[in-house]
Amino acid sequence: MKRIGKNKGVVYGGSDIWEELNRLIKSTAPSKVICLTDSNTAKYCLPILESHLDSDIRISGITVPAGEAFKTIATCQSVWQQLSDLGTDRKSLMINLGGGVITDLGGFVACTFKRGIEFINIPTSLLAMVDASVGGKNGVDLGHIKNQIGVIQNPLAVFVDVAFLDTLPQPERNSGYAEMLKHGLIASEAYWNELKDFHNMNSDALADAIWKSIEIKNRVVTKDPNEKGERKTLNYGHTLGHAIESYCLESKDREPLLHGEAIAIGMVLANYISQQMLAFPKVKLQQTTSHFLHHFKRVSFDLSEIEKIIELLKFDKKNVDGNVNFVLLKDFGNYKIDMTVANDLIFNAFEYYKNFKN
Amino acid sequence: MKRIGKNKGVVYGGSDIWEELNRLIKSTAPSKVICLTDSNTAKYCLPILESHLDSDIRISGITVPAGEAFKTIATCQSVWQQLSDLGTDRKSLMINLGGGVITDLGGFVACTFKRGIEFINIPTSLLAMVDASVGGKNGVDLGHIKNQIGVIQNPLAVFVDVAFLDTLPQPERNSGYAEMLKHGLIASEAYWNELKDFHNMNSDALADAIWKSIEIKNRVVTKDPNEKGERKTLNYGHTLGHAIESYCLESKDREPLLHGEAIAIGMVLANYISQQMLAFPKVKLQQTTSHFLHHFKRVSFDLSEIEKIIELLKFDKKNVDGNVNFVLLKDFGNYKIDMTVANDLIFNAFEYYKNFKN
Repeated sequence: MKRIGKNKGVVYGGSDIWEELNRLIKSTAPSKVICLTDSNTAKYCLPILESHLDSDIRISGITVPAGEAFKTIATCQSVWQQLSDLGTDRKSLMINLGGGVITDLGGFVACTFKRGIEFINIPTSLLAMVDASVGGKNGVDLGHIKNQIGVIQNPLAVFVDVAFLDTLPQPERNSGYAEMLKHGLIASEAYWNELKDFHNMNSDALADAIWKSIEIKNRVVTKDPNEKGERKTLNYGHTLGHAIESYCLESKDREPLLHGEAIAIGMVLANYISQQMLAFPKVKLQQTTSHFLHHFKRVSFDLSEIEKIIELLKFDKKNVDGNVNFVLLKDFGNYKIDMTVANDLIFNAFEYYKNFKN
Repeated sequence: MKRIGKNKGVVYGGSDIWEELNRLIKSTAPSKVICLTDSNTAKYCLPILESHLDSDIRISGITVPAGEAFKTIATCQSVWQQLSDLGTDRKSLMINLGGGVITDLGGFVACTFKRGIEFINIPTSLLAMVDASVGGKNGVDLGHIKNQIGVIQNPLAVFVDVAFLDTLPQPERNSGYAEMLKHGLIASEAYWNELKDFHNMNSDALADAIWKSIEIKNRVVTKDPNEKGERKTLNYGHTLGHAIESYCLESKDREPLLHGEAIAIGMVLANYISQQMLAFPKVKLQQTTSHFLHHFKRVSFDLSEIEKIIELLKFDKKNVDGNVNFVLLKDFGNYKIDMTVANDLIFNAFEYYKNFKN
């Protein structure tokens, strides 16, 4: 078993984590254990979890509809009400079993129900394993603005078993891959290079690569828990990526993008802007763009759409005083935060992305 | 100027607090100041606040409908949306100007908007001054179950000016008086005796009595921030009081009670149960009941209503494992927590309350 951290928010990894989960639940002696799932993880993941739990641990289930569209306060209200109806008290324990929507929403519900009950996250998507599992951020969307409502609080523990990835459709898996590539960009060119072969990895290599991503994110979050400096690098590609994701969710003419698809576009744009403003090496811009476009579909936006996307930037949580703050890179692992970017340069970045030829 | 505490959650009192408020706002250098009011405090209190603010401090207002019926997630959603529309960012400051509904709801909204922005509470009701101003609890109701959703987090500071009480209708003032009497019961017979003359106090004596209440609550909360022991005494009279309040809010045949009216009943019942189970002195039971019935209207419930009130006890946040936990008193300032009370005794307590003759 692998472990990162030792207090709240500790992450356990490996296929032999289940004994630890059983031990933790028993030592917590909860008055009740509630497992939150979505309609997919209720079907594909809950039976796996139950097969690992000791027979004397009884769980009550709450299931919500699957998908980002349900990461809302309305869904929270339904879960709060069900917790209340089940007689959940302050000594109850909640297990969030699912992707990032479930761990984000479930964490927020747990932190606010009766002013806070303990919770454990078991991420079942690649995105949730490498991104949502560390750092204690939780929350839900407000309208089409992502993660506007939430708190920062660590779960009791996080359990990562890559076996759950076998339950995941390929596009969802790809979505997490984008966050891993981000960890390469902001922290280590060597890790980026390792990840090139991601889709041919056997399960041991995959587990190893995922664990490295969790370690990178943990290192960043531990150094800068309050997001004054380095933690902002985790937002790389997300400023425009979130706006693109919100725009596609909102627009009647667009299919919603997966989070990873949106931030893959965001990272190509950020790499281009980094090249222009901070001299991020041209050859690396070319190579990374080529890699992103090989693995993530190209979505072209016309000028009026780009204007709407820029308009959405003002809702970014990192903004202060109406200024949009970008993280940019001088090179892999060499960042600059709180950069203001001219709108013209953003239009040029979209143009570069649209016309890039491998 | 009087002060309790020095870090987050510091409480300032007196009529000369406004310079400190101006200083604090300026030293925080917020990107924006938003003032949350309800329809009453927007009319009667906001002009007073504005008259005290330096002319270079600009505030944006958000107003919600007045009353406990609007202490809901739906109201939070409206406030979150308005904050978003106003371009509120993480460096913005929220001022909650109002009674307990505004400070509780506004605190929760601030703690969860973009995962938390700073806020200042300015209580304008007696109840909010003596109860909601200390301890960092915030939140909203879920359906008719009070304060089910919330977090614990201190405001940047609390400013208490008793001058706001002149804007308050008499019944509202009485509602806060009940909490002050509770502080007497759980902490000091001398303070209880002082409070007997509450309605004839001049404004200096009133300010003094209010400050003593804040000091008592602060002492209890500081000693036991995580509510393992003594802090539970602040719940005295609230177990049945909250259930009575919820029942009257929910029932079509009942007028809603003010919080203080409900917990005044709850304290009479708790005193009776304390007398039966812990030998709280009979003569003090008689005197306190007489005092409560002199100042708070008697509301008689029939047997089927009492059954429904007992049913509501199961939603009390202090409950664990399905057991209803009461705080009871051996005498003024001498408490026992986590007491289980038989339903028969609760019926007898209602009977005692109904038939008590002065």
